Amino acid sequence: MKKLIGPFTQILTLAGLGLKGALSDDDLQIISQGGVLVENGLILAVDDFEALRKANPSTTIEEITGDHVLLPGFVDCHTHICFAGSRAKDYAMRIQGKTYLEIAKAGGGIWDSVTQTRAADEDLLERLLLQRIERHLAEGVTTIEIKSGYGLETASELKQLRAIAKASTQTKASLVSTCLAAHMVPKDFSGGQSEYLNYVFHDLLPVIKNENLSNRVDIFIEESAFDAKNALTYLNRAKQMDFDITVHADQFTTGGSAVAVKSGAVSADHLEASRDVEIKLLANSDTVAVVLPGASLGLGMQYAPARKLLDAGACLAIASDWNPGSAPMGDLLMQAAVISTAEKLNTAEVFASLTFRAAKALRLNDRGILAPGMRADMQAYPTNDYKEILYHQGKLKPLIIY
Amino acid sequence: MKKLIGPFTQILTLAGLGLKGALSDDDLQIISQGGVLVENGLILAVDDFEALRKANPSTTIEEITGDHVLLPGFVDCHTHICFAGSRAKDYAMRIQGKTYLEIAKAGGGIWDSVTQTRAADEDLLERLLLQRIERHLAEGVTTIEIKSGYGLETASELKQLRAIAKASTQTKASLVSTCLAAHMVPKDFSGGQSEYLNYVFHDLLPVIKNENLSNRVDIFIEESAFDAKNALTYLNRAKQMDFDITVHADQFTTGGSAVAVKSGAVSADHLEASRDVEIKLLANSDTVAVVLPGASLGLGMQYAPARKLLDAGACLAIASDWNPGSAPMGDLLMQAAVISTAEKLNTAEVFASLTFRAAKALRLNDRGILAPGMRADMQAYPTNDYKEILYHQGKLKPLIIY
Repeated sequence: MKKLIGPFTQILTLAGLGLKGALSDDDLQIISQGGVLVENGLILAVDDFEALRKANPSTTIEEITGDHVLLPGFVDCHTHICFAGSRAKDYAMRIQGKTYLEIAKAGGGIWDSVTQTRAADEDLLERLLLQRIERHLAEGVTTIEIKSGYGLETASELKQLRAIAKASTQTKASLVSTCLAAHMVPKDFSGGQSEYLNYVFHDLLPVIKNENLSNRVDIFIEESAFDAKNALTYLNRAKQMDFDITVHADQFTTGGSAVAVKSGAVSADHLEASRDVEIKLLANSDTVAVVLPGASLGLGMQYAPARKLLDAGACLAIASDWNPGSAPMGDLLMQAAVISTAEKLNTAEVFASLTFRAAKALRLNDRGILAPGMRADMQAYPTNDYKEILYHQGKLKPLIIY
Repeated sequence: MKKLIGPFTQILTLAGLGLKGALSDDDLQIISQGGVLVENGLILAVDDFEALRKANPSTTIEEITGDHVLLPGFVDCHTHICFAGSRAKDYAMRIQGKTYLEIAKAGGGIWDSVTQTRAADEDLLERLLLQRIERHLAEGVTTIEIKSGYGLETASELKQLRAIAKASTQTKASLVSTCLAAHMVPKDFSGGQSEYLNYVFHDLLPVIKNENLSNRVDIFIEESAFDAKNALTYLNRAKQMDFDITVHADQFTTGGSAVAVKSGAVSADHLEASRDVEIKLLANSDTVAVVLPGASLGLGMQYAPARKLLDAGACLAIASDWNPGSAPMGDLLMQAAVISTAEKLNTAEVFASLTFRAAKALRLNDRGILAPGMRADMQAYPTNDYKEILYHQGKLKPLIIY
């Protein structure tokens, strides 16, 4: 049924901004006292509220009272929120100054989450996942990418992906799942990187394809996980199976983003260690550069060079990396506001990174901008000025979400 | 009336930790299945819940169901939450890369908050203040220091301090007010630093004393505000009037912490620019070193050297600096968790910095530790392990506050 929603004090459509490179706040399209005409979850028109009302005299009106600024819903294109258990012990050790190796030796690290996630049944995973999804949704995130990667064996990876599929029927948020079986070589696997990747390719990926559980494959390229050579072989094989490719790249050491660009990945994520050569490589590619300030805040390390990436012409997205180990916070808007002060990303750049540019990393071109034909994934903040949203650094919550 | 509250899965009493220097998590006193016996807002005993129940058979019991970890309420020893207006425009300019000077020229900076706070009446100030106090309280902060400093003339400074005094009758939180008339030389004052400080000393401080509106005096020592020489004269005069002294020190340039130590200040706050010489000075003094991660997250600058301060033997407190300009977020627990990963402050050090060490900066020795005779300012988090509190980086909220 057709519905006219408004008036909103301001509507930030985010239309007309480019997919790549630096932006200016002057280019933000702002409709004062605007309205949105929607039908079946899609936007028919975004315009002056009174003009829309006159042009659609018999349409149902959902009246908004009080000041509100309307934005597209945020797209979080990188999370690991399908897990069981807590890694609070790791966090306590990390702030004691313990190293990655010391934490792993004490039974911490990714392997701990694998153990706990393997032990959980699908229903528990789905329930825990839905709690996190609903919190994210309440904080304005209407599209959420969710990775597997705490199973690291066929049955447990499938369990994670099925829990995500089930959860997606229980929430208003759009979920996009990604197979991250290549998170690390599991401790109980008798073989090296290439043997494990072979196993995943032969044993897991065909089932995922058959059951249509995901069309995305991710890999962690890092000294503690997979090297560039093995990763490239794996990604090329996954690509031949028609999976979209994404890469955990340049978190501690470089090498990952080159593999991402070479394999035509939709995105290269992390980039804290990226230098000018990697920045240039990404800027000259179609690969979205996804920065994850939540991992910097969780580990106490430097931010990815977001400003330099934009200035070089990259398509920049900001995602939460919400996971039980290195990024336990999850609050995407807060993290985006915090990296904006450190890296000097202006309002237009931050909002683009949280919406249509992040959607590009998921190859979704039907959201992230409020314009006719796009999904009506929208959020409204109780304020009269869009500048208040980043200013409150995550503490101003969207009161109305469609 | 006497009351026994519990059982709590864990009680972190924070007793037995030193006031100065580095701490170890091994020294955290944890009472499993603990209870607290309280009367008239004071703690009579903290012990095993069943033991307390047997020893006090006729006492009313407030039963706690489900896992909870009990902590002393947090003490935020540095805020500027008595203000009107927003500085969202400053924030938008700052993330555009605009300098302090450019923002001031465009009508931003402290002076903007002064203009808006002067224009507000006392009732409005009180109402806005109470909203912020209640949010802080809901996030576990039971004692809040609040500075004036957006009046910068006798009547408006008094209006702020009176709004704080009135608010304190309307909330369960304990408020401590501080006169920060020496925030900057107001633009409309015809005279320099020393003339303005003279004016404050003669015109304002005696009224504050007479009306008992505050017993604390603060000054901002910085290139844009007051120099060390003028500050020292002012602080010594305030001290002779029996005010406690505190200083905004070493935020962008050094010099302030030396004045703080020389004048016997209870605290030196900010310290982002402190070098080894200032760290040593503070560590060898009775002045509490107060770090303000919220200002670092608001401005996008480095954190104060908290680890080095502890290792040198200082008494370290963490405060929010919640203010409309450089630290608009306010979320003290989140900020403490974030500086803990960056600076490697362990759990004991963080909790000490948020409680009894912060209370020392306010010269309050009746809170911040759960022990007989102390105030029953307490907060309970819905978890079975105290490590979960910092791990969730501010997203786990205390469900029960006394």
